[in-house]
Amino acid sequence: SKFEYVKLYESDDRLLPRTYIVIRVDGRGFHQFSKKYDFEKPNDLNALNCMNKAAEGVMRNVQDVFLAYGQSDEYSFVFLKDTNLFERRASKLMSTVVSTFTANYIYAWSQLFPNNPLDGNFLPTFDSRAVMYPDVQSLKDYFSWRQADCHINNLYNTTFWTLVQKGQLTPHDAQTKLIGTLSADKNEILFTDFGINYNNEPEMFKKGSILRWEKLDHKYPKNPTKRQLDKYRKSVRDAKINILHCDIIKDEQFWNDVLAEEDTAATTTPTS
Amino acid sequence: SKFEYVKLYESDDRLLPRTYIVIRVDGRGFHQFSKKYDFEKPNDLNALNCMNKAAEGVMRNVQDVFLAYGQSDEYSFVFLKDTNLFERRASKLMSTVVSTFTANYIYAWSQLFPNNPLDGNFLPTFDSRAVMYPDVQSLKDYFSWRQADCHINNLYNTTFWTLVQKGQLTPHDAQTKLIGTLSADKNEILFTDFGINYNNEPEMFKKGSILRWEKLDHKYPKNPTKRQLDKYRKSVRDAKINILHCDIIKDEQFWNDVLAEEDTAATTTPTS
Amino acid sequence: SKFEYVKLYESDDRLLPRTYIVIRVDGRGFHQFSKKYDFEKPNDLNALNCMNKAAEGVMRNVQDVFLAYGQSDEYSFVFLKDTNLFERRASKLMSTVVSTFTANYIYAWSQLFPNNPLDGNFLPTFDSRAVMYPDVQSLKDYFSWRQADCHINNLYNTTFWTLVQKGQLTPHDAQTKLIGTLSADKNEILFTDFGINYNNEPEMFKKGSILRWEKLDHKYPKNPTKRQLDKYRKSVRDAKINILHCDIIKDEQFWNDVLAEEDTAATTTPTS
Amino acid sequence: SKFEYVKLYESDDRLLPRTYIVIRVDGRGFHQFSKKYDFEKPNDLNALNCMNKAAEGVMRNVQDVFLAYGQSDEYSFVFLKDTNLFERRASKLMSTVVSTFTANYIYAWSQLFPNNPLDGNFLPTFDSRAVMYPDVQSLKDYFSWRQADCHINNLYNTTFWTLVQKGQLTPHDAQTKLIGTLSADKNEILFTDFGINYNNEPEMFKKGSILRWEKLDHKYPKNPTKRQLDKYRKSVRDAKINILHCDIIKDEQFWNDVLAEEDTAATTTPTS
Ligand SMILES: Nc1nc2c(ncn2[C@H]2C[C@H](O)[C@@H](COP(=O)(O)OP(=O)(O)OP(=O)(O)O)O2)c(=O)[nH]1
Ligand SMILES: Nc1nc2c(ncn2[C@H]2C[C@H](O)[C@@H](COP(=O)(O)OP(=O)(O)OP(=O)(O)O)O2)c(=O)[nH]1
Ligand SMILES: Nc1nc2c(ncn2[C@H]2C[C@H](O)[C@@H](COP(=O)(O)OP(=O)(O)OP(=O)(O)O)O2)c(=O)[nH]1
Ligand SMILES: Nc1nc2c(ncn2[C@H]2C[C@H](O)[C@@H](COP(=O)(O)OP(=O)(O)OP(=O)(O)O)O2)c(=O)[nH]1
Ligand SMILES: O=P(O)(O)OP(=O)(O)OP(=O)(O)O
Ligand SMILES: O=P(O)(O)OP(=O)(O)OP(=O)(O)O
Ligand SMILES: O=P(O)(O)OP(=O)(O)OP(=O)(O)O
Ligand SMILES: O=P(O)(O)OP(=O)(O)OP(=O)(O)O
Ligand SMILES: [Mg+2]
Ligand SMILES: [Mg+2]
Ligand SMILES: [Mg+2]
Ligand SMILES: [Mg+2]
Ligand SMILES: [Mg+2]
Ligand SMILES: [Mg+2]
Ligand SMILES: [Mg+2]
Ligand SMILES: [Mg+2]
Ligand SMILES: [Mg+2]
Ligand SMILES: [Mg+2]
Ligand SMILES: [Mg+2]
Ligand SMILES: [Mg+2]
Repeated sequence: SKFEYVKLYESDDRLLPRTYIVIRVDGRGFHQFSKKYDFEKPNDLNALNCMNKAAEGVMRNVQDVFLAYGQSDEYSFVFLKDTNLFERRASKLMSTVVSTFTANYIYAWSQLFPNNPLDGNFLPTFDSRAVMYPDVQSLKDYFSWRQADCHINNLYNTTFWTLVQKGQLTPHDAQTKLIGTLSADKNEILFTDFGINYNNEPEMFKKGSILRWEKLDHKYPKNPTKRQLDKYRKSVRDAKINILHCDIIKDEQFWNDVLAEEDTAATTTPTS
Repeated sequence: SKFEYVKLYESDDRLLPRTYIVIRVDGRGFHQFSKKYDFEKPNDLNALNCMNKAAEGVMRNVQDVFLAYGQSDEYSFVFLKDTNLFERRASKLMSTVVSTFTANYIYAWSQLFPNNPLDGNFLPTFDSRAVMYPDVQSLKDYFSWRQADCHINNLYNTTFWTLVQKGQLTPHDAQTKLIGTLSADKNEILFTDFGINYNNEPEMFKKGSILRWEKLDHKYPKNPTKRQLDKYRKSVRDAKINILHCDIIKDEQFWNDVLAEEDTAATTTPTS
Repeated sequence: SKFEYVKLYESDDRLLPRTYIVIRVDGRGFHQFSKKYDFEKPNDLNALNCMNKAAEGVMRNVQDVFLAYGQSDEYSFVFLKDTNLFERRASKLMSTVVSTFTANYIYAWSQLFPNNPLDGNFLPTFDSRAVMYPDVQSLKDYFSWRQADCHINNLYNTTFWTLVQKGQLTPHDAQTKLIGTLSADKNEILFTDFGINYNNEPEMFKKGSILRWEKLDHKYPKNPTKRQLDKYRKSVRDAKINILHCDIIKDEQFWNDVLAEEDTAATTTPTS
Repeated sequence: SKFEYVKLYESDDRLLPRTYIVIRVDGRGFHQFSKKYDFEKPNDLNALNCMNKAAEGVMRNVQDVFLAYGQSDEYSFVFLKDTNLFERRASKLMSTVVSTFTANYIYAWSQLFPNNPLDGNFLPTFDSRAVMYPDVQSLKDYFSWRQADCHINNLYNTTFWTLVQKGQLTPHDAQTKLIGTLSADKNEILFTDFGINYNNEPEMFKKGSILRWEKLDHKYPKNPTKRQLDKYRKSVRDAKINILHCDIIKDEQFWNDVLAEEDTAATTTPTS
């Protein structure tokens, strides 16, 4: 039609080749959301599992994601350095990831919270963004940033809610007590006043969750026939995803493994 | 932490002020999706209503959308020219809209398709994009483009499926028969061979759906107190949204009304 | 060659259609430059004429510029709203304008400053940027912004240098005296202490310079033959450019004329 | 002033950190320009030297350029991977480079072509663009791309103009003769028919020109005092720039040296 010229107003948002593309999704207003659905404080196991399930859904349904990391109401996904998914268009990548995440979160919710059904006026939603990291160092530092954030918030929240729930402090008093305290101080409060050894807290709460393919070998075929596509889909559905809660800030071996794998995938993959 | 520098790798994607921002969402692989869930051909009333419900969810939960238009597996949303939502950041706008749309689609599905529950391995997802239109003419032409697309596809699909379903043609033969035909020819086939007057087909199928606030007067308050926010939320929840299936290509009055309203909202709204 | 893939790392930077594209150039380190070449303070007539000549060079050698405004060490150029020069690529537009400006500045310098030749270690250079303005209001406000800037700086500089040159104040004392003064105060100082009526200062110093085609009718031909191109070039070379020093903040008539002209050019021009 | 809001229409165009930024400038319409000023064909020694002088001007006047490569009417400049010049703003970088290049080209012209002065209606101008290369491999491949381009064009042009100038062929016949020929064929024509060994042609014509600091040790001081700045300027003015015409496609040692140097500069430089 004569109106088609308006398509030209769309801008070309392809991301730079050979950089790691990270898509981060983050829950919108989860402060409210966690109240509305009575999440346990500071960590609700079911809610975190629901995030992990949603992330698994992204890994299985959006090709070329080789690593994911989640904590609190957020999840980050990294694509193979050489992915050509959607020709690396930023909008396509970030919208597909966040839509897939949202869909799987809601689906997982119905399984994990059978007695706490979602209110249609208060549904979980997420924003997303795409960021490029040009080298391994900045990529590692990105994940270290998110894991350090997890640690800092979790130590704070654990101490805060212990003071409130076990120490009978008002939220206001707990907050005041924690102003200016360092990590060591918070560990001390937990240990001395409440007999809690922070080190023994669940790893998932302290470190967040890392999702990794058991084997990153189910590559998307180039110009697949219907049969190849079905086979690919089946292989992805059956492939195992491991959930880890390890330290990614200091663990050299972890990164060596992950990146060696990425490298192999990158050089052998005919990404479409 | 010392890793925070990686935040600087995020780019600033604020859209140009005083342009109309359009976010279009489109179902991913709905060709397959409509088969999987047995949509009626060429139009499934429930499926279209599900789209409309999802779009209503966006209008109620993402502020400053003043008009939306949907057809097939897509929906377009326009923001007030002067919106300052998310400081006009493209990623935030497009991801929030598509996530909200997805969540509401799945929720509406459970209401509209009680006997056709979603398979967790085959969930509905959408992509999205943000496009700027700098003036009223290009904005109108954008909507005309989408509505013309609706018309062309629907006339084709209606004729094609009539040939197949009522005319007993194979899909291949139906396709062959339609090659090179103009609109008039398709109208003729429908009328002469099957007694179908295309003009009498449902308006929603022919024109798509337009969503408009009955009154665009529930503006988001500036720096709202909790009370103001609750009041605002309630007013939005109660506000009426009209669904129209009118012609937006030729209807001057429609645009006069819509844009006069937009103008008023724009000048009176303290958009946050 | 097998290295050609690196061309794909270039990004597509086409600017939004139907917006006014403004390219602003600004002298790099002209504080130093004006000292090095002994510019008169606060305004050096020759230096300003040199800027105007350079701007004229841009108008004659870069097609589709319909208006320019300069003051101090800067010049702004606006393209026809519908220009398709370089497919509206931002890099091409801003680099071509600044390179043409620089070349013409240096050429004009050799004519205007025969006794003050340029030192090869200290050449005049400029930066540039491209900004889109989506409507007439923002475009007018852009020019008003630059002209208001001219006025404020010129009134300040005129008063400052009068205090130093005629009032024998040290620069430091002159600066101190002017802290906190309003426009009216500065007018007063000039008039009472030095008998200078600021209104009688040269218009070019007070208002800056506006460049406008006498007739905007030498449109670039579409896919020109060599003969058409030569004819076009000749017509541009012979066309007259008017230099005005009028008020563009309040003058409605000026804008009516300019924009009517732009409109005609836009609708009749087969921009390449 | 109340018009200052228009400044917000400028977009933030900072380039991704830790990537190599390449600025390429290219002569506008140098096909015409070389005719107008009677360049020797296919290579005019003076014209190429003028390009080299202009490039040297860029290296001395724009900080953090560590390598440049030129051929024909183009030059490419690479910045230190960690440069923070202009906060890495693309517009500032590309406009400053192209303006500095233009200024120095015109200045060098007056020295190199005393008998062929520039016509004010036909001045040399250049466009420019900024491209990011995220790793060493793509950076090397970029330079290989430009040098391969130099080789291919120069072998073609040398053969073509030999056929015309020494072989008395018309341009049309020379062109026809060369259609479909490979490199070996052109070498053969030159050698057999004209006794020209292409290998003995001047290195600058065959390989282009590489500019490198003799020592990359004159780093821009952080927040310099006037004295430090003067000292820095003097050190840059006195520093030596080497011109090489070596093979950069295969020469591993060249890149090892250049990049080792870059690395040192990057880690020790307090880039402003
Ligand atoms: N009680 C509880 N709250 C949680 C849990 N996980 C996340 N949250 C809450 C704590 C924070 O208030 C919120 C996440 O912080 P954000 O900075 O993302 O803020 P929020 O989502 O409210 O706003 P946003 O839309 O992201 O700007 O989610 C949980 O397991 N239990
Ligand atoms: N049977 C049926 N199909 C529908 C209905 N609405 C949409 N569809 C199907 C028809 C098209 O194959 C598809 C929409 O076309 P698209 O161009 O968006 O393609 P698709 O979503 O398959 O791929 P995409 O991921 O958007 O590139 O959705 C409906 O009401 N009934
Ligand atoms: N004496 C004298 N100075 C002038 C004249 N025109 C411009 N200038 C000087 C005054 C200012 O110091 C300078 C322009 O100010 P800018 O804000 O553009 O600063 P400058 O160019 O030094 O730095 P920049 O590289 O633009 O950030 O040029 C003139 O006619 N006479
Ligand atoms: N005779 C002669 N011509 C040269 C020499 N160096 C460059 N040229 C000419 C040959 C080409 O026609 C032209 C460079 O080709 P380009 O692809 O850059 O085209 P041109 O600058 O004409 O157009 P453009 O504005 O860059 O699109 O410059 C030289 O040393 N001698
Ligand atoms: O949302 P925050 O406060 O955790 O920080 P951010 O996500 O970087 O901020 P924004 O969502 O505004 O980009
Ligand atoms: O998806 P299509 O084919 O309807 O057309 P498009 O949406 O403009 O294409 P893309 O999704 O690739 O931008
Ligand atoms: O250069 P200034 O200070 O007049 O202001 P600006 O040009 O807007 O700043 P920048 O050159 O850094 O964009
Ligand atoms: O100018 P060309 O033809 O050598 O090729 P290019 O420079 O890549 O093309 P453009 O200048 O249009 O970007
Ligand atoms: Mg956030
Ligand atoms: Mg959140
Ligand atoms: Mg969060
Ligand atoms: Mg699409
Ligand atoms: Mg679709
Ligand atoms: Mg569609
Ligand atoms: Mg500036
Ligand atoms: Mg300046
Ligand atoms: Mg200035
Ligand atoms: Mg070019
Ligand atoms: Mg050229
Ligand atoms: Mg060239």
